[in-house]
Amino acid sequence: MPQLRLALAQVNATVGDLVGNADLVVEHCKAAVDQGVHLVVFPEMMLTGYPLEDLAMRLSLIEASKAGIEALAVRLKDEGCGDLVAMVGYLDQKPDVLDAPGIPKNAPQNNVAVIHDGAIVARQAKHHLWNYGVGDEIRNFVAGDTINVVQIGGIDVALAICEDLWRDGPSAAAKAADAALLVVPNGSPYEADKDDVRLALCARRAAEGDCVLAYVNLVGGQDELVFDGDSIVVDASGTVLGRSGQFDPELLVVDLELPAATATMPSDDERFGGLKIKRTIITSEPFAAYEPLPTAQAERLSRNEEIYTALVTGLRDYVHKNGFQSVLFGMSGGIDSTLVAAIAVDALGPENVNGISNPSAWSSEHSKSDAAEMAKRTGLSLDTIPIAPIFDSYQESLHLTGLAEENLQARIRAVIWMGLSNQHGHLVLACGNKSELATGYSTIYGDAVGAYAPIKDVPKTLVWELARWRNEIAVERGETPPIPEATISKPPSAELRPGQLDSDSLPPYDLLDAVLDAYVERDLGSAAVIAEGHDPALVHRVVTLVDRAEYKRRQYPPGPKVSRRNFGRDRRVPITHRWREDV
Amino acid sequence: MPQLRLALAQVNATVGDLVGNADLVVEHCKAAVDQGVHLVVFPEMMLTGYPLEDLAMRLSLIEASKAGIEALAVRLKDEGCGDLVAMVGYLDQKPDVLDAPGIPKNAPQNNVAVIHDGAIVARQAKHHLWNYGVGDEIRNFVAGDTINVVQIGGIDVALAICEDLWRDGPSAAAKAADAALLVVPNGSPYEADKDDVRLALCARRAAEGDCVLAYVNLVGGQDELVFDGDSIVVDASGTVLGRSGQFDPELLVVDLELPAATATMPSDDERFGGLKIKRTIITSEPFAAYEPLPTAQAERLSRNEEIYTALVTGLRDYVHKNGFQSVLFGMSGGIDSTLVAAIAVDALGPENVNGISNPSAWSSEHSKSDAAEMAKRTGLSLDTIPIAPIFDSYQESLHLTGLAEENLQARIRAVIWMGLSNQHGHLVLACGNKSELATGYSTIYGDAVGAYAPIKDVPKTLVWELARWRNEIAVERGETPPIPEATISKPPSAELRPGQLDSDSLPPYDLLDAVLDAYVERDLGSAAVIAEGHDPALVHRVVTLVDRAEYKRRQYPPGPKVSRRNFGRDRRVPITHRWREDV
Repeated sequence: MPQLRLALAQVNATVGDLVGNADLVVEHCKAAVDQGVHLVVFPEMMLTGYPLEDLAMRLSLIEASKAGIEALAVRLKDEGCGDLVAMVGYLDQKPDVLDAPGIPKNAPQNNVAVIHDGAIVARQAKHHLWNYGVGDEIRNFVAGDTINVVQIGGIDVALAICEDLWRDGPSAAAKAADAALLVVPNGSPYEADKDDVRLALCARRAAEGDCVLAYVNLVGGQDELVFDGDSIVVDASGTVLGRSGQFDPELLVVDLELPAATATMPSDDERFGGLKIKRTIITSEPFAAYEPLPTAQAERLSRNEEIYTALVTGLRDYVHKNGFQSVLFGMSGGIDSTLVAAIAVDALGPENVNGISNPSAWSSEHSKSDAAEMAKRTGLSLDTIPIAPIFDSYQESLHLTGLAEENLQARIRAVIWMGLSNQHGHLVLACGNKSELATGYSTIYGDAVGAYAPIKDVPKTLVWELARWRNEIAVERGETPPIPEATISKPPSAELRPGQLDSDSLPPYDLLDAVLDAYVERDLGSAAVIAEGHDPALVHRVVTLVDRAEYKRRQYPPGPKVSRRNFGRDRRVPITHRWREDV
Repeated sequence: MPQLRLALAQVNATVGDLVGNADLVVEHCKAAVDQGVHLVVFPEMMLTGYPLEDLAMRLSLIEASKAGIEALAVRLKDEGCGDLVAMVGYLDQKPDVLDAPGIPKNAPQNNVAVIHDGAIVARQAKHHLWNYGVGDEIRNFVAGDTINVVQIGGIDVALAICEDLWRDGPSAAAKAADAALLVVPNGSPYEADKDDVRLALCARRAAEGDCVLAYVNLVGGQDELVFDGDSIVVDASGTVLGRSGQFDPELLVVDLELPAATATMPSDDERFGGLKIKRTIITSEPFAAYEPLPTAQAERLSRNEEIYTALVTGLRDYVHKNGFQSVLFGMSGGIDSTLVAAIAVDALGPENVNGISNPSAWSSEHSKSDAAEMAKRTGLSLDTIPIAPIFDSYQESLHLTGLAEENLQARIRAVIWMGLSNQHGHLVLACGNKSELATGYSTIYGDAVGAYAPIKDVPKTLVWELARWRNEIAVERGETPPIPEATISKPPSAELRPGQLDSDSLPPYDLLDAVLDAYVERDLGSAAVIAEGHDPALVHRVVTLVDRAEYKRRQYPPGPKVSRRNFGRDRRVPITHRWREDV
């Protein structure tokens, strides 16, 4: 049977950085050529970064992407990659642009270009647009109607884009066209505890298509999302032929021996999940026989390592892709800010991590000593600025009491962090965990202040677990555990009034987190949560806390946003991107 | 020809308040019966409020809405409205629920129920889902496939829901079925300077359908949106038969004389923009002849009155629907906070408006005296809390300079407002205008702090225009103009350093606002803005300011949000709603 050396380029693209992303493509194509690769596949929207959200509709970006993909084809040939077939995601435009209700402005399409010998030999637009969870693609893209089958070295290769794989159609089309390989570029974000749904899906579609399936995904952070890579090649019997690591860039090279292309072709008017088939022959002669490489299959990360790595990746890319080098945050000596410190040190290096200790009249001695111990162990920089004199100066005019007085302390700290951030250029991090944010155990414009909140999606029980895990691997590696044991073992407290403990206001964290998992993560109604066996009074208490907190959080948005239209909502464009209108 | 007395119930529904909204329906139905009405039509999603965003997918809300609409039908009969035909929007569920990719969770539908004699005699789901601008309905609703034609008093009445009217289909279906009246419930938000596109559209569709068209819309504020009513009845020749006022609730009653229903009916498999027709006969006998009422047509508001009323409506409903009575904000004596004060006094009454003057070492005498003059003229409450001692207490530790020092003052003020808000229960307002927010002339966590920003969508030049207009109508009404003349005429300044003026940092506001209108409002690329005749250097400067400000604003979100799924985006549910999970 003919052979094909396939490479999956699992890379970290940056939204809006067309020049940097094109350089990444060229670099990986050259590496692929050096390794004798015949076909290299890049992730979804490689050239523009992903997801673009409403940026996809900006005419200047569409035009730059259309011109950019043409230039990239020429450049690849110029740089010695003309024989290689490269599949590169980019932003295109439906040729017969319509300006009508229901058509996104400027008719953008989420496309893949098949590049060979300095030219684009085939183009395909995503058909099934991702429009649930964090996806809102129907708002931004016009759906495509074609699935390409391209012949490379006498092997027929079918192409599907990300969400298309989750629906019926592409695998049926691949089977109908007798394609031996189905390649799928993706932009698929990480979720914790998702099991191995990707492999199961890929194996199922490979079996349906009676072909080998190659799935390539992005890596890196984008706003609140983290892409975890985990690119896979699997055959029709479910055997994994290659699998890349998680979170890190990688060029996964897999040697395949596949059935030769046949003349089988469905009739012109046949449709597969709405898609018609278009066939393109690039090279019909099989490549000269060669010795195949051994298959590579990366070790899977453990649950805690996987989550911790996602947190490190998300923070690192948020900071760097936004043009910062260093971060600053309040270090109370508690477990949350200490875990954030450990993540930040791992992501950015201790020289770029600045903790600020802001003791109040009610801060315990161990708060200060635990923060200092963490700084000593990791080498991060720790400054201490007591808030008592500032607190007194406010209270001379305000005379606040109760909750207002507690919040005042948290807000004084935030003003200090933002002042130091403005003066020295560090990005401010918020250290809240998911359990306290979900229940509103947090001060708006106080500890909630920050550009990025590394552990906002980590429940408190998992905060402790990750802290213990991080210390354990340090021991395994023969390093000093970064997190002081006392920080892990002491009872949590906000220290905003004398003797305060979290348990005064919240249910025990193990019970709380179990209900939050059902009500927030799994989005069950309260009746269904109770039906799982949780105490009804506890469920009632937690659901009330969550609903009230969500309501409060939304009442106080970040501050005013600017709308595209009067009285409209803020434009939905990514936070992290480098696209600029040039005049 | 048969007669029909039609009422359009232009009401202010509240998202999630099913009990309150049902009461509104009953109240208006009883008023309609008292006036001899045969058919009353309520706006889109009347029972649940609109827009629901991701709340639409909550099973408990869907079930409450389905039960609620059945109960409402029974209650209307019990309360003496059994003979009346009422069309009421509500949240329903596609009967054969699918849990599959591409189907919104729990298969919600944006429905209208046709209620008569204690029962629901027809149901219709919205077909064309609004998915651009502030609409994201494809994410939340399953599309319908049917257009209803119901016969009332021997007259055939066709039904279309909001966005369906903007597409081809409903008017063609009405014509094909020989319907004499096409009724359209809407949730259509206000936009400034939209001209009279609604009337033009209604007249066009009436002509296409060769029928009378009745368009009914919501009124009131919902988060950042304001619904302006403006319900319309227009015939096939474009003659307006009735039109309600803007922004206020109203029961618009219109007498129609219409052709009797014919037996004309398209074949079962004919489709109109994807819609099939379903016919229901409620009453086929014409109503006894009666003396028609004169037509009512409200006076249109002038541009400034319209915008000012939208601002008052939006603020009033944001405060009240979120359970607050009173507001608090920084009053600098400048034009922005003074206009906000005038809007707040008109929306809530002076007894619910609290201004805080926070002079610094660099505040001018006129700042303090102008704020005091405004308070004196309107009766709002004004407190003065100087920030110099607090500023000094921060600077003893921080020694901030330049921009960081300027921002510190703005943030000290915000901490004072939030402290007083927590202590006394007032909602904090942010007073920034669109020109300064768009260009980033504002402090994150400083003057940008607030639950609601009444003039965030008002450019600076319009701030002055509205202030002058508000004073002029006061004079016309023989009242004291609320806004001190000096506040309107003095040059704008942030007063964060000695002698500072806005013009040190920004282009003149008339030039700035013209470019912002093109670049932000009309979403033109910079090349197109220059092609309109603006100075390229000015365009470059403004575009750079806007892009950098947008980027900065997004880097510092409000603080962490809580996601439904790990690493996902915040749930998209409305800020203002009263829906609660009961256990």
